Amino acid sequence: MNRITELFKIKYPVIQGGMVWCSGWKLASEVSNSGGLGLLGAGSMHPETLLEHIHKMKKATSKPWGINIPLLYPETDKIMDIVINEGVKVVFTSAGNPAKWTGLLKSKGITVVHVVANSKFAKKSEEAGVDAIVAEGFEAGGHNGREETTTLVLIPQIRKVTSLPLIAAGGIGSGKAMLAVMALGADGVQIGSLFAASKESSAHDNFKRRIVEAGEGDTALIMKKLVPVRLLRNEFFEKITGAEQSGATTMELMKMLGKGRPKKGMFEGDMEEGELEIGQVSALIDGIKPVSAIMRELIDDYRKTKEKIVAGGIFDF
Amino acid sequence: MNRITELFKIKYPVIQGGMVWCSGWKLASEVSNSGGLGLLGAGSMHPETLLEHIHKMKKATSKPWGINIPLLYPETDKIMDIVINEGVKVVFTSAGNPAKWTGLLKSKGITVVHVVANSKFAKKSEEAGVDAIVAEGFEAGGHNGREETTTLVLIPQIRKVTSLPLIAAGGIGSGKAMLAVMALGADGVQIGSLFAASKESSAHDNFKRRIVEAGEGDTALIMKKLVPVRLLRNEFFEKITGAEQSGATTMELMKMLGKGRPKKGMFEGDMEEGELEIGQVSALIDGIKPVSAIMRELIDDYRKTKEKIVAGGIFDF
Repeated sequence: MNRITELFKIKYPVIQGGMVWCSGWKLASEVSNSGGLGLLGAGSMHPETLLEHIHKMKKATSKPWGINIPLLYPETDKIMDIVINEGVKVVFTSAGNPAKWTGLLKSKGITVVHVVANSKFAKKSEEAGVDAIVAEGFEAGGHNGREETTTLVLIPQIRKVTSLPLIAAGGIGSGKAMLAVMALGADGVQIGSLFAASKESSAHDNFKRRIVEAGEGDTALIMKKLVPVRLLRNEFFEKITGAEQSGATTMELMKMLGKGRPKKGMFEGDMEEGELEIGQVSALIDGIKPVSAIMRELIDDYRKTKEKIVAGGIFDF
Repeated sequence: MNRITELFKIKYPVIQGGMVWCSGWKLASEVSNSGGLGLLGAGSMHPETLLEHIHKMKKATSKPWGINIPLLYPETDKIMDIVINEGVKVVFTSAGNPAKWTGLLKSKGITVVHVVANSKFAKKSEEAGVDAIVAEGFEAGGHNGREETTTLVLIPQIRKVTSLPLIAAGGIGSGKAMLAVMALGADGVQIGSLFAASKESSAHDNFKRRIVEAGEGDTALIMKKLVPVRLLRNEFFEKITGAEQSGATTMELMKMLGKGRPKKGMFEGDMEEGELEIGQVSALIDGIKPVSAIMRELIDDYRKTKEKIVAGGIFDF
């Protein structure tokens, strides 16, 4: 038992990251049923869709679960109304100012966690009154911090400025990595890519297969003139990076990007023109598995790694 | 005791990275005297300078030590002659093809280690007959791999393709990080930035102070059209990245770069026009300390972290 399992009343300190187009009620409920904390990803849901997922979620699990809400979307007000009216107990906010919503959510008895990529926002989150922080490193999929700080460097940095419960994210796809970030000072982990490729993920099968096929160097953080985002290489990726390398302006890049590319890629399965958000750790993912198997392997690997360290031997000097 | 301490006959599995303009005989001998493996950085030494450092090194320590030789320099042939004639026992090669020199060095009884940033070169290194591999992640200072794979993701990738003794590099500045990468499958660590800022480093004091002052986001991997390199932000950095963002060609960038910038910055102390190679972990370095203190703190922190894991509690579930 640690501060993260206590805070959320879960068995393992494993949070399934709320992801656009991947984490609907099927994935999130299965993670919660397997002893982790499942999160609905509100970032790709209109309010009415979110409401539907909340209702299905309530039927699918009696275990704790939550919702991830990126604060940059125009419908955030409506989303927050729904969350409060439906009695959702856990909210992860990201991509915005933690001061804006934390107070209201806390006043309704909701556990609030904010996702950060630097210590400035970790401090802001603590001041805003959050219950825990997710620190997400450069290797993570999707939108990412401008500092490009990797998880290995980020966790000690965040640990220096706050004593709040800390969840590490970015690059975590095994029990070994889970133990590694906990040795660095994290109390738990948030895992995205591994669950994006799971059987219960709502992502298109084409996308899941591409995650499994991905090798080293097949993702990169691009669109730094807009909002940096880690994507799998495809035709769209090559077009954008080609334009970036020849000095395209922000406006030109926005025009090339257009709208709806994440849906086109991850949900509709267009592997060339869609935006495919996934972490570097995709290079280590070797199959599309059910959540229950992913969780079992993760915890087994964590325990075995811990036993090795406890046994000493090669770890003793 | 583990495979790395056995291979080099050292007390702690801590290698001091061979760095241009920072790691002369004073730094390397002190690391070896403190129980790690000190490496002379041949990358910034003409053959006659290297010879002088080797002679001083032999007087300064009776412990094992070695030399790091980047294979991209024109004087590599002469450097190898010196290494063999002087009876140097350990050579780390980097930035080149491991097949080229490993056979000759091994035939002279030299322990050979190659530095890689992806599993393709890890396999090549094994085929070439090296004794161990350094896997260096995106967060490391100086020249870096094109895949931008972070240490957290890289170590498991390399561990998948080779069973050779494995040394993790990039982002390691504490005993916690040391234990973290060993949990991932590494047998030891190579540390650069922390030693670059040490009292015994041959770097200019201006550079050491800048390392200590550096905060989050103060380094970045740039010059990707040439050879990617992680540098501290300064006037030169801004000029280059400005040119990159407006689509400068490789030729234009090479012209802006010119020659001798690493020496100008790191050795001569020009903090604005010099090239300042350092890792992301510089944000966590809080003082210019003697090597003996750095090593003591590192090992103490490692042991304390290990004890916490052994004690269980928050690590048990």
